[in-house]
Amino acid sequence: MSIVEFSQDQPNMDSSITITDCQVVDLRFPTSEEAHGSDAMHTDPDYSAAYVTLATNRDDLFGYGLTFTLGRGTDLCVSAIESLADKVVGRSLGSLVESFGETAQQIANDSQLRWLGPEKGVVHLATAALLNAIWDLWARVEEKPLWKLVCDLPAEQLVNCIDFRYLTNALTQQEALDILHHNDSTRAQREAQMQSTGFPAYTTSAGWLGYSDDQIRALCRQALSEGWEHFKLKVGANLDDDKRRAAIIREEIGPDRRLMVDANQRWEVAQAIEWIGELAEFDLWWVEEPTSPDDVVGHAEIAKAIAPIGVATGEQCQNRVLFKQLLQLGAISFCQIDSCRLGSVNEILGVLLMAKKFNIPVCPHAGGVGLCEYVNHLIMIDYIRVAASLDSRVAEYVDHLHEHFVHPVVVRDGCYLPPTEPGYSAEMHSASIEQYSYPQGSEWQKRLA
Amino acid sequence: MSIVEFSQDQPNMDSSITITDCQVVDLRFPTSEEAHGSDAMHTDPDYSAAYVTLATNRDDLFGYGLTFTLGRGTDLCVSAIESLADKVVGRSLGSLVESFGETAQQIANDSQLRWLGPEKGVVHLATAALLNAIWDLWARVEEKPLWKLVCDLPAEQLVNCIDFRYLTNALTQQEALDILHHNDSTRAQREAQMQSTGFPAYTTSAGWLGYSDDQIRALCRQALSEGWEHFKLKVGANLDDDKRRAAIIREEIGPDRRLMVDANQRWEVAQAIEWIGELAEFDLWWVEEPTSPDDVVGHAEIAKAIAPIGVATGEQCQNRVLFKQLLQLGAISFCQIDSCRLGSVNEILGVLLMAKKFNIPVCPHAGGVGLCEYVNHLIMIDYIRVAASLDSRVAEYVDHLHEHFVHPVVVRDGCYLPPTEPGYSAEMHSASIEQYSYPQGSEWQKRLA
Repeated sequence: MSIVEFSQDQPNMDSSITITDCQVVDLRFPTSEEAHGSDAMHTDPDYSAAYVTLATNRDDLFGYGLTFTLGRGTDLCVSAIESLADKVVGRSLGSLVESFGETAQQIANDSQLRWLGPEKGVVHLATAALLNAIWDLWARVEEKPLWKLVCDLPAEQLVNCIDFRYLTNALTQQEALDILHHNDSTRAQREAQMQSTGFPAYTTSAGWLGYSDDQIRALCRQALSEGWEHFKLKVGANLDDDKRRAAIIREEIGPDRRLMVDANQRWEVAQAIEWIGELAEFDLWWVEEPTSPDDVVGHAEIAKAIAPIGVATGEQCQNRVLFKQLLQLGAISFCQIDSCRLGSVNEILGVLLMAKKFNIPVCPHAGGVGLCEYVNHLIMIDYIRVAASLDSRVAEYVDHLHEHFVHPVVVRDGCYLPPTEPGYSAEMHSASIEQYSYPQGSEWQKRLA
Repeated sequence: MSIVEFSQDQPNMDSSITITDCQVVDLRFPTSEEAHGSDAMHTDPDYSAAYVTLATNRDDLFGYGLTFTLGRGTDLCVSAIESLADKVVGRSLGSLVESFGETAQQIANDSQLRWLGPEKGVVHLATAALLNAIWDLWARVEEKPLWKLVCDLPAEQLVNCIDFRYLTNALTQQEALDILHHNDSTRAQREAQMQSTGFPAYTTSAGWLGYSDDQIRALCRQALSEGWEHFKLKVGANLDDDKRRAAIIREEIGPDRRLMVDANQRWEVAQAIEWIGELAEFDLWWVEEPTSPDDVVGHAEIAKAIAPIGVATGEQCQNRVLFKQLLQLGAISFCQIDSCRLGSVNEILGVLLMAKKFNIPVCPHAGGVGLCEYVNHLIMIDYIRVAASLDSRVAEYVDHLHEHFVHPVVVRDGCYLPPTEPGYSAEMHSASIEQYSYPQGSEWQKRLA
């Protein structure tokens, strides 16, 4: 892949672009029919999204964003986005992104809606979708992929995109600036490296709970042939099954490749410690979501007990305050941000910087609808601008549903390659939207008939 | 007040009663017009509720429940309750309450909706409303007020109402049983005591942030004349204002009555410690919500720094896992459960038992719409059946909106008196529902015209 050249201009904060409308669609894919994405807690997911289109006063310019959901309840996110839209519609893009951290705080802290969170659950997922669409719009205006826009921002302006509320006892604005300045002189090298070899990924496609042993074995072989080096198995429903399936995967991938397990919050704290003890013979790199995502203290206890196996969590950690505490207590060895659960790039930048300060690698959650497309930008930002290291870093990849995206993620030899098109990559094909809109889309009309 | 006599029968789990329908109404009261309920984060609350009516196969039997909200977004809770209703409609009351903890877990862990939480935000508020209505229905069938139904349950059946998932490293079922058995022989005395003198309350009515100094002074005098002994002031927007207002209240209430302050999450951790230091001269009993409700570790740091002033929090703590950690880390001196944020009586019973184990008094949050009506039952359960102590225990009381309830809370000489009517006291007058339904109610049609 050749190196792509982008403009090196600073963003111009063009005040002539105004957001004129916000349309939201409930999109659902019937993935539960084939047990794709099944795990111990989510037995029948229909991978879904609340999909936002921001219209502007320019006929050819739109911003696209989404938040990922599992089927039922996508309508709640759609309604919540519609409730938040009046904080954005009618405003100029420049006024929104000029003090983008303040904008994010305004959207996340509506004085009446915040009672329903605050900054968690349906309303925060909606906040993410709306902010994701603004980031997409901004990057399109700047004619850069989102990762490049962020990597090129002056440090002060990047920090200005973050809402530091409740972070300052773990990370101050000055510490954030210091981190950004520290590796500044070498970032062009890292950018070139990403364009050349990409960011390492791992696959969850082989190990879903609903798959048979034969399916797992076949998928392992296929993944090996595609160059994957990290493999993840869903566990937690039945210990004997977990042992048998872990043995199959370890046998297929050999002793040197990395194996992770994911319990999807199935266990009590003591049970997690015991169960992991039983699986330790298969040489686990990390244990993901051993217990409630809310239980910072519990994760710290598990981490201490199962070391050197690492604890990983984050896909259901509601906001930056959870990550702050997980880092403060040494409860995680891997920080698994979710691009749609955290309040978009604004909140994610704060978590990337905290993780860097606490020296914990960020290994984003992906899969779902659009999560890989988003994560592709976030890992570039983290490596090029924040962490400046690939040590123990690997981003999740699941090979589902990419065909619905106008600019789908590109993975080569087990590595994510940086997006090249302007924006944040969430735009979907109009045919996909027509087919999978719920319940009026043609695919659902067939099923509901 | 004379002692009320109730049947001493065990609940009969009548399987002939079936829930046939679930109707939900969006009710909003325009309280923002007079700054009632205003604080540092919620500047214009319209006290609201998603109000549930469960119909049964008996024409004269309904269950009423609600969750409290602040205006915008009540529609999200209504939709979420409608999404959860099919887990209840068509089932017999007996089958729902027989293993009530399991029922609560089923409702809280819908395999698709749980992605939107889990057990937090809009979906958990909806879960609370639906379970509250089932509890109301059960108590009506048993012809007892809810508190009396729960106090009369055999210990095993009471424990069976609790979902212990994620609690067992702080409280096991056996520990819960031991707590319940321990004070069993003396509970008739406590029940008689409650019927005679009631449970101590405190008032927040004097100290809302939107009120003038003169209003505060006048309200203090009124509250003193009504027998109140505890007073709470909203703080956190401006230190000079807070000092002036605290001085006014302390002057009015004298040195011996208790003064609490409530920052409604306004501060960073370090800022909380500093600000409270500045207010300490006014002899504060507790500081409520000093920072993010999600920040267990931060609350622990604040608690250590400001002792002997106690930290109180809970009204926005999303579920039992937060309370577990606050107790484990010694982060709170007062446990402020919210009757509609936690997943109804089921989850609250678990928190009451944990608080008892950790020897922390439960001082429930109330006010809002129906919260005092609910809390009245919960404090009776806590005192009579769980904590068996009134030491440092006081429940919030706000004198708003009670006129809309068919059986409003009764407070005498600054104490809550136990409810006497069957049910959980959430039933509202049909005229109130007609007037305040949003947006079609007559009060809103006037305003929106």
